[in-house]
Amino acid sequence: MPRTDASTPRILACDVFGTVVDWHGSVMREIAARAPAIDAAAFARAWRAGYQPAMARVRAGELGWTRIDVLNRMILDTLLPEFGLAAMDEASRAELNRVWQRLAPWPDAVAGLARLRSRFMLCTLSNGNIGLLAEMAKHAGLPWDCILSAETFGRYKPDPRTYRGVAEIFDVEPGQVMLVAAHQDDLDAARDCGLQTAYIERPAEFGADAPKPVVGDAANTLHARDLTDLADRLGCP
Amino acid sequence: MPRTDASTPRILACDVFGTVVDWHGSVMREIAARAPAIDAAAFARAWRAGYQPAMARVRAGELGWTRIDVLNRMILDTLLPEFGLAAMDEASRAELNRVWQRLAPWPDAVAGLARLRSRFMLCTLSNGNIGLLAEMAKHAGLPWDCILSAETFGRYKPDPRTYRGVAEIFDVEPGQVMLVAAHQDDLDAARDCGLQTAYIERPAEFGADAPKPVVGDAANTLHARDLTDLADRLGCP
Repeated sequence: MPRTDASTPRILACDVFGTVVDWHGSVMREIAARAPAIDAAAFARAWRAGYQPAMARVRAGELGWTRIDVLNRMILDTLLPEFGLAAMDEASRAELNRVWQRLAPWPDAVAGLARLRSRFMLCTLSNGNIGLLAEMAKHAGLPWDCILSAETFGRYKPDPRTYRGVAEIFDVEPGQVMLVAAHQDDLDAARDCGLQTAYIERPAEFGADAPKPVVGDAANTLHARDLTDLADRLGCP
Repeated sequence: MPRTDASTPRILACDVFGTVVDWHGSVMREIAARAPAIDAAAFARAWRAGYQPAMARVRAGELGWTRIDVLNRMILDTLLPEFGLAAMDEASRAELNRVWQRLAPWPDAVAGLARLRSRFMLCTLSNGNIGLLAEMAKHAGLPWDCILSAETFGRYKPDPRTYRGVAEIFDVEPGQVMLVAAHQDDLDAARDCGLQTAYIERPAEFGADAPKPVVGDAANTLHARDLTDLADRLGCP
């Protein structure tokens, strides 16, 4: 691994949902194909909105360690009746739940990650479970060197043991790891653990009709428009 | 993932040291380059021979969870004086210990794995730690979909939780996972957990001067000469 100076990271740890893949557009398209009558964008946002509270139940110990695949399915089962889809059968629910393994990468993601991988150890650090992330990578062609997950550490982000855990896995100092994410709260928690941080703008994360502010905090090590821009800023060929 | 019939596995979980990479030849070459006067083949075998007893100390609870990188270094520090190399300095020891991240693949491995990956979810299941396996894959170009390790499960093979853990990670039945290994004891333990098994012949695992019997047990699901032969037997293009 080339190391140009002390401040160059060795390991890039990437958040995935929203940062690398477009969960909103992908879920919306699959819902719209199955249930043309409902508000697919609202369904996608509601499904995703259930995610933080579900993980909070795990963090609080109310639920034992539970994979995102299972949490997503619990949320889905709650949502379907609210959207008039209570009649959906078991096989269709299981199939729909796997949409999270089929999320489409943002247009810059595959090329950007391939360039980043040419200079850095490129891994995920996602709350998505290992199997989900591996199926997604295979489906979308995401060129990870290594899939690390909350499941690897038995804790969900923003638990410090996830961020520090990446450094421990690779036997490096926390400052040699850079978290790459489109969410400032994730980056803040990583910085508190000594990691470098790269903010990625994803204004359409919640849909083109619901643009997200993408200012990013001045304390981030880098601010990039997308993953190809990050590759430029990190000097990747 | 294509599935031709009920008995076709979905997941191939590969042992790594000896099965995919030639630890004996790689360690021997690095030792010979550093210390031309010693018996490099004997050094390589002695280093590897320390591995099972070291893991046994972890399994017995005598040591807490300890990564192979650390166990290898403990063994190295014991071996060096025995081979007249007690004077080796700290930086050289650390550098030599990383030889396990630089092990060369067997000549068939990269091409064989790439073919296997075209039809199966291809992961490691090694006692090597995650960081070691990721560095090795990057160095040698091993095309894993996912790196799973004893470290993922906090237990060393042959603990049943490692074999069953692969099935749990991918939410499949144990019979949909095939362990690929050059060691019958590893395959036996996997079969006891319901996994399919593929024996890979590696007669030169301990050196060309110390050929290993490669008969394999008739109970194995498949017996293959090497990883390209396994790709043939599994119908991979």
